[in-house]
Amino acid sequence: MRDIVVFSGSAHRALAEDVCSALGVGLSPSDCVRFSNDCLQVQLLANCRQRDVYIIQPLVPPTQEHLMELLLMIDAARGASAASITVVMPHYAYARSDKKDASRISIGGRLVADMLVTAGAQRVVTMTLHAPQVHGFFTVPVDHLTAIGEIAEHYRGQDLTDAVVVSPDLGNAKTASLFARLLGVPVAAGSKQRKADDKVVIDAIVGDVAGRRAIVLDDEIATGGSIVELMDTLQEEGCHQASVACTHGLFTGKAVQRLRDHPGITEVVTTDTVPPPPDWPELTVRSVAPLFAEAIARIHAGESVSSLFDGVDPAHAPPQPKLPL
Amino acid sequence: MRDIVVFSGSAHRALAEDVCSALGVGLSPSDCVRFSNDCLQVQLLANCRQRDVYIIQPLVPPTQEHLMELLLMIDAARGASAASITVVMPHYAYARSDKKDASRISIGGRLVADMLVTAGAQRVVTMTLHAPQVHGFFTVPVDHLTAIGEIAEHYRGQDLTDAVVVSPDLGNAKTASLFARLLGVPVAAGSKQRKADDKVVIDAIVGDVAGRRAIVLDDEIATGGSIVELMDTLQEEGCHQASVACTHGLFTGKAVQRLRDHPGITEVVTTDTVPPPPDWPELTVRSVAPLFAEAIARIHAGESVSSLFDGVDPAHAPPQPKLPL
Amino acid sequence: MRDIVVFSGSAHRALAEDVCSALGVGLSPSDCVRFSNDCLQVQLLANCRQRDVYIIQPLVPPTQEHLMELLLMIDAARGASAASITVVMPHYAYARSDKKDASRISIGGRLVADMLVTAGAQRVVTMTLHAPQVHGFFTVPVDHLTAIGEIAEHYRGQDLTDAVVVSPDLGNAKTASLFARLLGVPVAAGSKQRKADDKVVIDAIVGDVAGRRAIVLDDEIATGGSIVELMDTLQEEGCHQASVACTHGLFTGKAVQRLRDHPGITEVVTTDTVPPPPDWPELTVRSVAPLFAEAIARIHAGESVSSLFDGVDPAHAPPQPKLPL
Amino acid sequence: MRDIVVFSGSAHRALAEDVCSALGVGLSPSDCVRFSNDCLQVQLLANCRQRDVYIIQPLVPPTQEHLMELLLMIDAARGASAASITVVMPHYAYARSDKKDASRISIGGRLVADMLVTAGAQRVVTMTLHAPQVHGFFTVPVDHLTAIGEIAEHYRGQDLTDAVVVSPDLGNAKTASLFARLLGVPVAAGSKQRKADDKVVIDAIVGDVAGRRAIVLDDEIATGGSIVELMDTLQEEGCHQASVACTHGLFTGKAVQRLRDHPGITEVVTTDTVPPPPDWPELTVRSVAPLFAEAIARIHAGESVSSLFDGVDPAHAPPQPKLPL
Amino acid sequence: MRDIVVFSGSAHRALAEDVCSALGVGLSPSDCVRFSNDCLQVQLLANCRQRDVYIIQPLVPPTQEHLMELLLMIDAARGASAASITVVMPHYAYARSDKKDASRISIGGRLVADMLVTAGAQRVVTMTLHAPQVHGFFTVPVDHLTAIGEIAEHYRGQDLTDAVVVSPDLGNAKTASLFARLLGVPVAAGSKQRKADDKVVIDAIVGDVAGRRAIVLDDEIATGGSIVELMDTLQEEGCHQASVACTHGLFTGKAVQRLRDHPGITEVVTTDTVPPPPDWPELTVRSVAPLFAEAIARIHAGESVSSLFDGVDPAHAPPQPKLPL
Amino acid sequence: MRDIVVFSGSAHRALAEDVCSALGVGLSPSDCVRFSNDCLQVQLLANCRQRDVYIIQPLVPPTQEHLMELLLMIDAARGASAASITVVMPHYAYARSDKKDASRISIGGRLVADMLVTAGAQRVVTMTLHAPQVHGFFTVPVDHLTAIGEIAEHYRGQDLTDAVVVSPDLGNAKTASLFARLLGVPVAAGSKQRKADDKVVIDAIVGDVAGRRAIVLDDEIATGGSIVELMDTLQEEGCHQASVACTHGLFTGKAVQRLRDHPGITEVVTTDTVPPPPDWPELTVRSVAPLFAEAIARIHAGESVSSLFDGVDPAHAPPQPKLPL
Repeated sequence: MRDIVVFSGSAHRALAEDVCSALGVGLSPSDCVRFSNDCLQVQLLANCRQRDVYIIQPLVPPTQEHLMELLLMIDAARGASAASITVVMPHYAYARSDKKDASRISIGGRLVADMLVTAGAQRVVTMTLHAPQVHGFFTVPVDHLTAIGEIAEHYRGQDLTDAVVVSPDLGNAKTASLFARLLGVPVAAGSKQRKADDKVVIDAIVGDVAGRRAIVLDDEIATGGSIVELMDTLQEEGCHQASVACTHGLFTGKAVQRLRDHPGITEVVTTDTVPPPPDWPELTVRSVAPLFAEAIARIHAGESVSSLFDGVDPAHAPPQPKLPL
Repeated sequence: MRDIVVFSGSAHRALAEDVCSALGVGLSPSDCVRFSNDCLQVQLLANCRQRDVYIIQPLVPPTQEHLMELLLMIDAARGASAASITVVMPHYAYARSDKKDASRISIGGRLVADMLVTAGAQRVVTMTLHAPQVHGFFTVPVDHLTAIGEIAEHYRGQDLTDAVVVSPDLGNAKTASLFARLLGVPVAAGSKQRKADDKVVIDAIVGDVAGRRAIVLDDEIATGGSIVELMDTLQEEGCHQASVACTHGLFTGKAVQRLRDHPGITEVVTTDTVPPPPDWPELTVRSVAPLFAEAIARIHAGESVSSLFDGVDPAHAPPQPKLPL
Repeated sequence: MRDIVVFSGSAHRALAEDVCSALGVGLSPSDCVRFSNDCLQVQLLANCRQRDVYIIQPLVPPTQEHLMELLLMIDAARGASAASITVVMPHYAYARSDKKDASRISIGGRLVADMLVTAGAQRVVTMTLHAPQVHGFFTVPVDHLTAIGEIAEHYRGQDLTDAVVVSPDLGNAKTASLFARLLGVPVAAGSKQRKADDKVVIDAIVGDVAGRRAIVLDDEIATGGSIVELMDTLQEEGCHQASVACTHGLFTGKAVQRLRDHPGITEVVTTDTVPPPPDWPELTVRSVAPLFAEAIARIHAGESVSSLFDGVDPAHAPPQPKLPL
Repeated sequence: MRDIVVFSGSAHRALAEDVCSALGVGLSPSDCVRFSNDCLQVQLLANCRQRDVYIIQPLVPPTQEHLMELLLMIDAARGASAASITVVMPHYAYARSDKKDASRISIGGRLVADMLVTAGAQRVVTMTLHAPQVHGFFTVPVDHLTAIGEIAEHYRGQDLTDAVVVSPDLGNAKTASLFARLLGVPVAAGSKQRKADDKVVIDAIVGDVAGRRAIVLDDEIATGGSIVELMDTLQEEGCHQASVACTHGLFTGKAVQRLRDHPGITEVVTTDTVPPPPDWPELTVRSVAPLFAEAIARIHAGESVSSLFDGVDPAHAPPQPKLPL
Repeated sequence: MRDIVVFSGSAHRALAEDVCSALGVGLSPSDCVRFSNDCLQVQLLANCRQRDVYIIQPLVPPTQEHLMELLLMIDAARGASAASITVVMPHYAYARSDKKDASRISIGGRLVADMLVTAGAQRVVTMTLHAPQVHGFFTVPVDHLTAIGEIAEHYRGQDLTDAVVVSPDLGNAKTASLFARLLGVPVAAGSKQRKADDKVVIDAIVGDVAGRRAIVLDDEIATGGSIVELMDTLQEEGCHQASVACTHGLFTGKAVQRLRDHPGITEVVTTDTVPPPPDWPELTVRSVAPLFAEAIARIHAGESVSSLFDGVDPAHAPPQPKLPL
Repeated sequence: MRDIVVFSGSAHRALAEDVCSALGVGLSPSDCVRFSNDCLQVQLLANCRQRDVYIIQPLVPPTQEHLMELLLMIDAARGASAASITVVMPHYAYARSDKKDASRISIGGRLVADMLVTAGAQRVVTMTLHAPQVHGFFTVPVDHLTAIGEIAEHYRGQDLTDAVVVSPDLGNAKTASLFARLLGVPVAAGSKQRKADDKVVIDAIVGDVAGRRAIVLDDEIATGGSIVELMDTLQEEGCHQASVACTHGLFTGKAVQRLRDHPGITEVVTTDTVPPPPDWPELTVRSVAPLFAEAIARIHAGESVSSLFDGVDPAHAPPQPKLPL
């Protein structure tokens, strides 16, 4: 079996170190220089020849800087005769640009996928893409992990009597219902109404939430605006307290203040696919580093990655032969 | 300006002839031979050299036959020195295979997009893709048309007092709300609940439908099963009559019987993106041939296609400069 | 050495099982679903990661269905991180569309080769291509096997005094003369005369056949028309009985009846590159499964495949160093 | 309509000048420098921007030099922003390397096709490829011209009573029979027998030639060996005189002496796809420059090239619509 | 002739407006949105269909932001069916990353070239690449302009008695000597000595500068460090005053202060390939907008761009036929 | 670990044999046939399947023949299912065509790089490219070796008092200064002055050479013209004797006579990247075969190639981690 070499870009070195610890390999050093004309240059400081190279970099702000650093790292690994190059991108920010909902706009999710492949990426490992179709933007294999098992761990052992899982968006309620089944509680969802072309508000809750304790689950929280809006609607429906959980806790703009200070939000639970905000000690961060490490180990050993999510998400679980042959 | 040459595969020759009539050009002949080993061979029977070639073929059953015929027509046009090759595919059936919701499954929507481009397609004109992200599966420009303006024409002049537009699926309610705005009526939507991993049922209606006449709008009707299910839920909510409209009226399996005989369905309205079922004289078919003809004419003349949908769908309308420069 | 995983499409599962038996590996399960709009979706039901995947599928009628199923299986294997994907296509039906003998026709043999590579095929194993130039339509390595050794086995031990090998076509008589040499008998060939552009008849035999027993060898028999025509000419030349052999026994249309009932045809010998017709118990079918199994085993072990045909066909035999270096 | 610019490599400048004369455009100058390390560098000495560039170069000895010069000319035209680049290659020498008839040999016909496309060729115009399948080696459109109409002109007006067209090879007799039909005379063919793996001799004539005057037609004559062999067999069959015609008159090695001095050969007719041998004044050279000029003019004007061969070769003639639509 | 549409990224809108003024076309509006996760999205606000699209964007700090905006603009234009896409990149910052002078480093100049082409760029217009070999990193045509004619205009009419053009670097003195010839003055150059692997100093002047007035010419000035170093060496050689000129005046870090306050520097002359520093009113900026406008006009009209530099730089001037043909 | 198979083209079989001896593997036989139309065909006479194939061929005159032979060998290895194909090209002659210094010229260095990759090359091992930017012309990994350590060995043990390393060209003096540091002696360089556009002469020496013994170091010597010119200038500066060293000793035209008979040149030292001239027994040839063998061994074993040049050239040495992580 070939050797593994793991590099980290500068976006989230702590996660890369945790992944390496879990894998039992050292994080290999690299260097990113900025020239006086603001161009970047990357040097990988460990032998890549005939090795399986993994480059860990979520696309978090400053997003363009981290994307370019990632592309240059891939280019350097290719030039250094890596046997294979796997991009481990726990958060693929450009996945949100996935459709052409206005004339002559760019589709960044596809463009960046093409750029990664052009630079030399041969496999992508990522988590919780904003839309599942984004998987199809890549011509190389994608291992698409889920964090809902890890997030569910947070609630195990708690008294979940009267709890209900709430999805902010009925359109994407599939993951929430899987999550609810893991916890053994019912599910509800906010119903978004389109007020005008550019304004969508949550104005109804489908499912029974009155008098219950909500566990709100979203894929990503950026400014936190729609969570606050959902809380208002929940309160109108008689649900006054919520634990808020998400995979990608970006918490940009006023998100920290909004969520931390909201009287109805008892706690916020997220993962470390992106670096946590520096000033929020009460935030509960569940690490997905062991999941990424296990995925890398299985990729390397040629074992099934999907079976890692057996019992968690059937989209990831290994299929069962249906008929004897 | 270069000459246009339009060919039709065998999937829906009537539509191709209508498009050509509207364009004012003749439909050029072609020939598809089946060999004794069941292989197909295509011959284009009009000069393609330095011409803009348009090939009209929706992917309807037998789907694989029509797909292969389309690919061979593209190949023949490329070999015949066409200046450009545009695939006019009013219904892209493989768009439904757009994600990897189980381990090790094929993503046919992306694969077929790649095959069309490999064969030589340089532009695609299509209508109402199942998910908007499928647009991003193509590396060539896609003109994505909408039929909701044409369908709305059917209802203009009717008394729409007490009418309500109903989307079977809250997740895709955006188009329904655009349609409702065109008609000046409110919108509602069915809420799908996931009973088990492989079973989704409509069990609630978001929005007020009691005592109203519904106009159900869906993108595609195949077996008609979910429409019937929606009708049941509507009736429980006190809405007893519906006009059913869709863009792609495939009506496979028992669909004709189910919809024709349903007591609550007053009429079914569809378009001719696919051939209508032979045995359903009451079916209202609105032709989108003029829309495709106009799109082809604008593509050829270098005029905006999106402005064709000005006032219909802002995703297609031409953007407005927001700031003086 | 990496593990082998073998899948079979639905075209010829019996052959795939025989290949697996000979290889000593199990045939891995897969699933092909047909949606209500006639689109196919494939799921591979065994781990492909880091494995050498072999997909067995001859292109037999319904050819387009089997081709699309094969493409989707390749796509699924690629998405499932297969280490390599080899298409084992014992009969490549589209090879007959190999040239442009009329204006603006498709060249399906090249198009399908490109589609297989676009989907992700990295190597092709096939048998007896209609024209040897078709090899050059592929950009990936092709292992081109021959069945003449296996067919010759059928005649060994028989009394071949007065036997003569007859090729229906002088243009392709090279294989027949190799075959004759294997059996130690002389060779003759039918001479095709072009009567009109679309009509070719066999009207002469080059070589001495009078009073001899013919062994007719062709690459493929579809409707059997030219074999019957050859028989007539042979009889005119004083040769009244023939054993007929071919690699690809498609036997479409009236072939079974034509050949079975022909008084001059004493037996028909073919291989199992394609499924045998259900209603012809007297047909002699020599299995090429062991040849394909051995080829796969050698590919996997990095051994020469061509040496498998040492003494059979010099085109496949390993070359000898001609000069000391 | 865009301007045409025509360049010539150094392989056959006389032909290029004749093509330009017939086209009514000047031959644009270019320069090919050889450096002290034997590398070539090309400079095109006329503006190519937004122009349709045609580069005329048959692949004649020294073949590698002329191929590299051609590739560099294509590269220079691409870098100079040509609107389109058409390679006019009257003789494609590498077409003979079209199959893998021994283990681990190169397939030069496909490789050189890929190299031309990699360099930037967007269309190829060529004449009489050795095998029609070679057409399929190119991913860009190929206009495949035939010289048999031009060669037939040589014989028109002659007394063709008792003449017979003879193809040296039964396998490729299709062109000879077309040619015979143009002249209104019968056709015959040599039958090649394989004596050993590496030795093929002509040992029979199919068709009646006794007492007739032969018109031998071949695609290409290199050393002339097989023509001489055919003459011997013809004489055994009672045919003592022949006019020899071919499209590509390479006449390498001892060909000139062999053919010129042969008592049975009354004349040799060829075309100027390749430069004529310097020392053979009796050789009849029919110019195909007007054909190439006409093809270029039609390509440029978007007219059918195949109809140029209407009545000559149905493979090139425009197809007729078979059914009213 | 097709219509031109010109867009500008946000890097240097003033230059784009000047180019458009000179061209006599309006600058078309576009919109670049930044999402809350720091991803960019571009919308082009003018019809691109069948038009020749030009996108003007030099790569200046923040370089990654401007590069990503440029790539998204190209992607949007491609998706909007542009007939052709030309990137006008007056300063290609990544050209400095052009070689692998340490193990396992990225070659950004090649990577970014590949990314532009992947996004859809079909031609690049740029000025004064750091090394001429960078031209070869692109697979699409590059029009490589020079500013030395424009810079020379600044000095025409001045008294150039005793003036000498000085190149900071002997290795790149070719441009300086062309420039000197334009002005009719002699040339000199600094000789860089490598003190250590990472330290290069200018320690000698080749050519006579004592008592002369220097015109220092460089391709790009970033921090100004090497210009100051050159000034010290010039003063040691008896040359006490210099006019400093460069094409790309980035003036990053302390450059403005360093150059403005240097007692020996009488003036600094640059062009507007990049935006001028805001706080330097004495800086002389010669506009290259007319040159870019003329190049675009010629590209569009299919006229020679190189002849624009006739008499300025023989690398750009049109070649002269050397021999009568 | 996979097996290695090494083939040699016909350009420099002696080097290939020496590399194989040093590697301890046999040189595998191959065959290159020339057809009567001057086309080449290659057959590899050893099993390549699943093996790492190395093909050794410097591009020396006749350059086009050797290039085409190399391309055909790559093609044959790809078709023979090689696991990987590495081109070992000790001298890449086309690297000199690296820029567009006149209008509409070819850039052969990039074109040939693309052709090698199109044929199937997956890695290139070369030595001392004319410009380091040429590395970036390849999309596949390049291992760029240096011979200066080996050349320096020639001078070790000699009395180097009063020696000075002289580079003929200041622009490329970096390698000379590395070489000087290896020997512990000072460095000087010729300064080229551009007399006219097409004439560059060496007219000054930067650095102190009077009374010293020069060691002239160049990358390549073709006709020897500029070495002779440098010698004249050195003599004017009081340096009367020189040892001349270069990596690529092509010695074309009158080079042997010029250098051998020059009174000031005491010896010429070169390597065997190209075959030595036959008639120059005094020429000192240092073999780089062990370096290439070691590089191949390290590539095969997945060890660092750059560390092979540790202490020789920092561009090749392994980078040191700069900061603890």
